[in-house]
Amino acid sequence: MKAQIPNFNDLIFSGAQQNTTNIPGLPVDLDDYLRDSIGEAAATLPESGIIEVVNYGREREGLVPFWVGEGDVPTPTFICEAAIEALRAGETYYTYQRGIPSLREAIARYHQRHFNIDLDPERVIVTASAMQAMMETMQTLVSAGDEVIVISPVWPNIYACIHMQQAVARSVPLDVDGNEWRLDLEMLFDACNEKTKAIYINTPGNPTGWVMSKDDMLALRDFARERGLWIVADEVYGKFVYDDIGAPSFLEIMQPDERLIVTNSFSKNWAMTGWRVGWVVIPKGLGQVYENLVQYNTSGVASFLQSGCVVAIDEGDEFIQQQVTRCQTNRDYVCERLQSSPNVRLIKPQGAFYLFFRVDGEPDSVNLAKWLVDDANVGLAPGTAFGAGGEGYVRLCFAPSPETLRTGVERMVEALK
Amino acid sequence: MKAQIPNFNDLIFSGAQQNTTNIPGLPVDLDDYLRDSIGEAAATLPESGIIEVVNYGREREGLVPFWVGEGDVPTPTFICEAAIEALRAGETYYTYQRGIPSLREAIARYHQRHFNIDLDPERVIVTASAMQAMMETMQTLVSAGDEVIVISPVWPNIYACIHMQQAVARSVPLDVDGNEWRLDLEMLFDACNEKTKAIYINTPGNPTGWVMSKDDMLALRDFARERGLWIVADEVYGKFVYDDIGAPSFLEIMQPDERLIVTNSFSKNWAMTGWRVGWVVIPKGLGQVYENLVQYNTSGVASFLQSGCVVAIDEGDEFIQQQVTRCQTNRDYVCERLQSSPNVRLIKPQGAFYLFFRVDGEPDSVNLAKWLVDDANVGLAPGTAFGAGGEGYVRLCFAPSPETLRTGVERMVEALK
Repeated sequence: MKAQIPNFNDLIFSGAQQNTTNIPGLPVDLDDYLRDSIGEAAATLPESGIIEVVNYGREREGLVPFWVGEGDVPTPTFICEAAIEALRAGETYYTYQRGIPSLREAIARYHQRHFNIDLDPERVIVTASAMQAMMETMQTLVSAGDEVIVISPVWPNIYACIHMQQAVARSVPLDVDGNEWRLDLEMLFDACNEKTKAIYINTPGNPTGWVMSKDDMLALRDFARERGLWIVADEVYGKFVYDDIGAPSFLEIMQPDERLIVTNSFSKNWAMTGWRVGWVVIPKGLGQVYENLVQYNTSGVASFLQSGCVVAIDEGDEFIQQQVTRCQTNRDYVCERLQSSPNVRLIKPQGAFYLFFRVDGEPDSVNLAKWLVDDANVGLAPGTAFGAGGEGYVRLCFAPSPETLRTGVERMVEALK
Repeated sequence: MKAQIPNFNDLIFSGAQQNTTNIPGLPVDLDDYLRDSIGEAAATLPESGIIEVVNYGREREGLVPFWVGEGDVPTPTFICEAAIEALRAGETYYTYQRGIPSLREAIARYHQRHFNIDLDPERVIVTASAMQAMMETMQTLVSAGDEVIVISPVWPNIYACIHMQQAVARSVPLDVDGNEWRLDLEMLFDACNEKTKAIYINTPGNPTGWVMSKDDMLALRDFARERGLWIVADEVYGKFVYDDIGAPSFLEIMQPDERLIVTNSFSKNWAMTGWRVGWVVIPKGLGQVYENLVQYNTSGVASFLQSGCVVAIDEGDEFIQQQVTRCQTNRDYVCERLQSSPNVRLIKPQGAFYLFFRVDGEPDSVNLAKWLVDDANVGLAPGTAFGAGGEGYVRLCFAPSPETLRTGVERMVEALK
């Protein structure tokens, strides 16, 4: 009865062509008794690729952590108090699977105010995190054997959602073109085949800070229309764009009934990472499918948390602006300081809040990250955790306070001398 | 390109033998454009089978709803205030994927105090609802084509979790034996084949109130051991047992490393249905697999909610006792009153907080539920929503306050005359 467990790479990408990538990360070490008795997808799901470095560094006294995607400001008081009021008012029962109506309407207002998008609240589904929005989206779109194109390097969790559907992720890595990340659209189109169901794009992008141009978005939209493919756009960092370049949303250039799904989160805009609330914008015709998936995955999101989210949207614009301004200042500072080291190769990010960079002479991401733990006492994420195109890089989150950032970055500059 | 979408029954259970059941419920009405472009599992996922009746009755003025599995008491203040304190203290960041250590330890204490089970906190994973615990469990155990035995009638969401893994649920319905629900173990053993990976048991059971006997549990355990099958035990109603019969936990009769997964929830014991927090007890060797699944499904549970859960466990025993006492009184009342109607056929539930009953002359569950909406202005769930064995029955939740219960039940008694 003992099954032969194939090598991780062989298993997921058997028969795959070039540019197909594995889920980055460390495969779980399971004893045979368990490995043979559980499902293949779960048994071969890797740990986050960041963990090896976190484990290496987590006990270091005084280490400055830049490896996680959050700042060091707690959720603003006015948001917390709105949730507290709802909790004290007894909003502790089962609630709408699609989200409370007032929040779905608030999310529509957010799109109107910030992106000039006229959005029907019926297209909005509230989810237990943007992560869950992505899992429900892959549950909706793909089955065993299907393929999804993923523009990488990227937030590694997306690979896992695809893998859990027993489907295949095919990476199309960004190129470096002078001082910019660049998407090779022809390579992307070539990567699509008869098994391809969807194209996943995170713009502004984690970890690169790449922002997809409107021209590229239009070309991709036209290609997807022609092939009948779904576009899955993760627009979590949509407000975190610098130098006034703006990051268009796919919602601006596509019709309400098209094959487009956009995921978003309360985590970044309103410093609510710990709340685990996100949303997804879908074609109205998929409303019942998503309602079912919410029902069968989590059975909804606490309504008192959603009451806090309504206030975040309606009263939080100034807070968002402060966050974005701070991140732009932080970005400028960290780029300028690290560029003073002749060995650092970086592309100034246009969006999101990460710097993704290399250091001449250390081509191994994990070694580089461990070296920065040892010599600068800072924690960065290895670029290999983000899939194809991340080799050699490390990711630094510059969302923390300027003081924290300065402490860590000056140590890095010193160590890099 | 247009795919032929098979009939729902054909699709899920092609080649299945007797006693295999469909997911109960209404298939989603999707237009062709969407149905052909999304995954088969999502496209064929049905709405909850309760919805047809809820839609029929939800606008009726003065309707007393007994169709949902919750009472009408909000979460106790001492629990809410603990969460509020944590929220105000800034516990708003990403947290442990397995759950905060203090909660995992509190859950271990709960098992010790209430069931005399010595539980290693390392075996406990906190999840974003017991629903999510079940989804993660099916993601762990089964792949496309695998089968899971489900003792029915049962909470319908379990079918959906299995279906979403592109796997097959095989129902083994309970028998009615005089005044008791009875599990035919031979039928259950016969239903297992080479594709079977797990057996799902909800005891005390929703909707029947059946409590599995210790003898049956031991026999099932021995069979599962012999075949190498997983036992998945949903013990959400473990404290809701009446007449001092007690409901043993599978944790009492199996070893820590055996193929046993037990799911549980904060919803019922502490009136926290709206919080969406649950837990699962697993063999320690699966810890990393579940940590990964939490990461890739929801990336954890809000730590300030978990702080409330710690206090629920440590200071909530009296509240649980009040709830159980009230449910026992309510059960006795509703059984006595409905039995006064000669047409009612009921089995007094030994556990959980539902009465599952039939009415002579109306063999159709949905018709019966609609008739009770029309003639008694009460909302019950149709038994067909709970899979094989539920035909003809309706489910009444007797967790609400005695006053609410009395209003609805007296109307039913009148209508049944």
